[in-house]
Amino acid sequence: MASEAARDQNNRNEGENGDRGFCGKLMNKVVEFPRKLKKLGQDDPRRIVHSLKVGLAVLLVSLLYYFQPLYDELGATAMWAVLTVVVVFEFSVGATLGRGLNRILATFLAGALGFGVHHLANLSGQTAHPILIGVFVFLLAASVTFLRFFPRLKARYDYGLLIFILTFCLISVSGYRDEEILEMAHKRVSTILIGAFTAVFVCVFICPVWAGDDLHNSVANNIEKLGSFLEGFGDEYFKVAGNTESNKALLQGYSSVLNSKQSEESQANFARWEPRHGKFRYRHPWKHYLKIGTLTRQCAYRIDTLNGYLNSDIQTPLNIQSNKVQELCMKMSSESGKALKELAWALKTMTKPCSAASCHITKSRAAANNLKSLLKTSAALLGSEGIHLLDIVPAVTVASLLSDVVSYAEQIEKSIQELSSFSHVQFKSAEPKKALQPCNSSASSTNDNVPHHVITIHKLPSQKEIGSKQGAAN
Amino acid sequence: MASEAARDQNNRNEGENGDRGFCGKLMNKVVEFPRKLKKLGQDDPRRIVHSLKVGLAVLLVSLLYYFQPLYDELGATAMWAVLTVVVVFEFSVGATLGRGLNRILATFLAGALGFGVHHLANLSGQTAHPILIGVFVFLLAASVTFLRFFPRLKARYDYGLLIFILTFCLISVSGYRDEEILEMAHKRVSTILIGAFTAVFVCVFICPVWAGDDLHNSVANNIEKLGSFLEGFGDEYFKVAGNTESNKALLQGYSSVLNSKQSEESQANFARWEPRHGKFRYRHPWKHYLKIGTLTRQCAYRIDTLNGYLNSDIQTPLNIQSNKVQELCMKMSSESGKALKELAWALKTMTKPCSAASCHITKSRAAANNLKSLLKTSAALLGSEGIHLLDIVPAVTVASLLSDVVSYAEQIEKSIQELSSFSHVQFKSAEPKKALQPCNSSASSTNDNVPHHVITIHKLPSQKEIGSKQGAAN
Repeated sequence: MASEAARDQNNRNEGENGDRGFCGKLMNKVVEFPRKLKKLGQDDPRRIVHSLKVGLAVLLVSLLYYFQPLYDELGATAMWAVLTVVVVFEFSVGATLGRGLNRILATFLAGALGFGVHHLANLSGQTAHPILIGVFVFLLAASVTFLRFFPRLKARYDYGLLIFILTFCLISVSGYRDEEILEMAHKRVSTILIGAFTAVFVCVFICPVWAGDDLHNSVANNIEKLGSFLEGFGDEYFKVAGNTESNKALLQGYSSVLNSKQSEESQANFARWEPRHGKFRYRHPWKHYLKIGTLTRQCAYRIDTLNGYLNSDIQTPLNIQSNKVQELCMKMSSESGKALKELAWALKTMTKPCSAASCHITKSRAAANNLKSLLKTSAALLGSEGIHLLDIVPAVTVASLLSDVVSYAEQIEKSIQELSSFSHVQFKSAEPKKALQPCNSSASSTNDNVPHHVITIHKLPSQKEIGSKQGAAN
Repeated sequence: MASEAARDQNNRNEGENGDRGFCGKLMNKVVEFPRKLKKLGQDDPRRIVHSLKVGLAVLLVSLLYYFQPLYDELGATAMWAVLTVVVVFEFSVGATLGRGLNRILATFLAGALGFGVHHLANLSGQTAHPILIGVFVFLLAASVTFLRFFPRLKARYDYGLLIFILTFCLISVSGYRDEEILEMAHKRVSTILIGAFTAVFVCVFICPVWAGDDLHNSVANNIEKLGSFLEGFGDEYFKVAGNTESNKALLQGYSSVLNSKQSEESQANFARWEPRHGKFRYRHPWKHYLKIGTLTRQCAYRIDTLNGYLNSDIQTPLNIQSNKVQELCMKMSSESGKALKELAWALKTMTKPCSAASCHITKSRAAANNLKSLLKTSAALLGSEGIHLLDIVPAVTVASLLSDVVSYAEQIEKSIQELSSFSHVQFKSAEPKKALQPCNSSASSTNDNVPHHVITIHKLPSQKEIGSKQGAAN
């Protein structure tokens, strides 16, 4: 953000210095454009498929103009079908279904109401007609617009309310005779039905993108990102691994979790429109994902604070680093990281959280408790070598934050357990091999007996780490 | 969130037990509805005004049907004007202008392109015509849909791209003769112009809601909310004030800051469409507000961690609380809180950050440094009375987090200073009385010489506090 503002300022200065800077900038943009287009497609190939699907749906609905019998029936109102396809077709099935149903229902209801009002106004005579219609239009537009501020209505029915106002005004205001209005309403409803069905058909039956899948994966990926940070944090903070800039950069994957609330909420709203698909039945508890997402974000806030200590100038002195505190902090960090990765895997594959996750959590909790006992015997840390209390403040703060993170990992585990216990959610049981895994909470450093899983996420936090894991798993 | 999921589960159980629960629920909803409506209006009365404005704009544009000369000219296409008003009219001026301009420009460009393609296809003969049109429609719909994924285009021109596809398809597909198409394109453009101008006129000239004002105020209010938390935190954590639940609840105002990113970004996008208004010139550096907003959120993450310690079971023992650490922590918290409130006031009133703010920051920094010196002499805290290191871990963590918060307050101050130094931003100079305020960084507890300002925000964090301040200011 800071660099963006600075760049803007520079651009403005360049602009003032002459037109050459502007031309150069324009050339740069033109040259960069195809590269950006390519990257956009590579980041998520479903975008290309979606674009082709929209082209296909528009093409299909424009055939209405070419089949003479259909065109004779519908005439110029066939354009409503094209219009419906373009505005209804969204990226995910849930969003498309939601918009389509909103549009159809709202058109139908508002059409009926508009016809009623028009008929009523006609009965009241030539003079009163426009006044009565005007009053109705004003009242309905104002009150439905106000309803759009309701958070619950806005989340699911905003588009429907908009179309309701629109159709009501179109039908009631237009100065036709009753029969013409009936015909117009009939044509409008049927063309909108054709358009909405075309959009939904293409959206659902050609490489569908389910909002529910996206929500499910993004919640799991967010937990995975926190796990990756925690696995790498201990080494990075205590400078065990080489302190390269690239390591630090690889740890930044968590930052996208901080602002994930709104996208998760809209995905959950879309998902509620979707029928049974894949592993998810209709009425899957999508709201529960928001709960898991909230816990993940709260954990991410602590991790953002921890991340501040990575870049802090004040570092713990070496003689402190080499002691038991360091070992326990690293254990808390790596074990809670592994636990979160296990939980992400369990959620993603819809397997009941296996003993491996709780095993890691138990270990990290044990490390936290050991650290507490250690801190009770403060002589182990202070005094003997002339170390001030100030010197261990960063380490103590990090330990305290890590202990918070362990609590959040426990809460996330509980919450995923809860999800798996909903009656209409089918979580597989863990493989027997995994379920029987003994949890040796007192084991101090050998964690090789716990199997690891590889989860593919869009931006891999650490290719190197995952590579070494794959080697271990095979 | 947790309680919501539990409530859902209960509701489902009730539903199974009988219909009485369902009827009761429905009755409850019906009874609660008017209360909720009233609250919605009271929370932000501009919502009521906006609804009435939409009603008025729709009424105005529906007059097209009643003036015979206009109706003779436009005929049934007058409905495009009604449609335009309904879909273009948004809450803020920036959003309405953005949508209106997008719609007009996109209709114009796509109309011209569509006419060109239609003409070209006509030249190619009867058989090739539909094929050529089909190919063009498919290619254009697919490629423009793909462009909508570009984050920058999506932020400002998403609606324009949608309307571009729409109009192009309507014009090129419709099987009319050239003259008819020209007439249709002309009518469509003129009715859309009428609709868009009506919407913009009503939106701008009747109680306008400026997105820029909203962004400006929400960034300032967010800083103010953090300030309120910090002012109250010290007392609450060290149990100086009575430990009531209501105090804790009043401190929760900060939580809305955590998820403010997306609303700030969309407001900044809308604000860029707005002309000069009030204190803001055209090309006001709205992007810089996003930078301040980012710093505010990062500070809020630390505050969320601090808030966790308020509810934690592990509290610092009393003998620690009564010592110097407590005094310094409370000072850091309250001084940085006051500094943030001063900064919020400076930003809100567009006054150059006065010495009062930097004075509070200097004081909080001094307290942080004093705490550091104190921690160097660890004997003052430990040993003598059998206090373990473990006992002071929470206090040390809180002190460390508060020290982070002080750094963020400094960065926020710098960032507001930077905003006030932009060439086309007019910040007033601070009043001479305030500018001459002496900054006594060594003063230990008498802060009454620093004037306080009252800022009205939607949800007041602590009525009591503000009340007492008002008393002091008057």
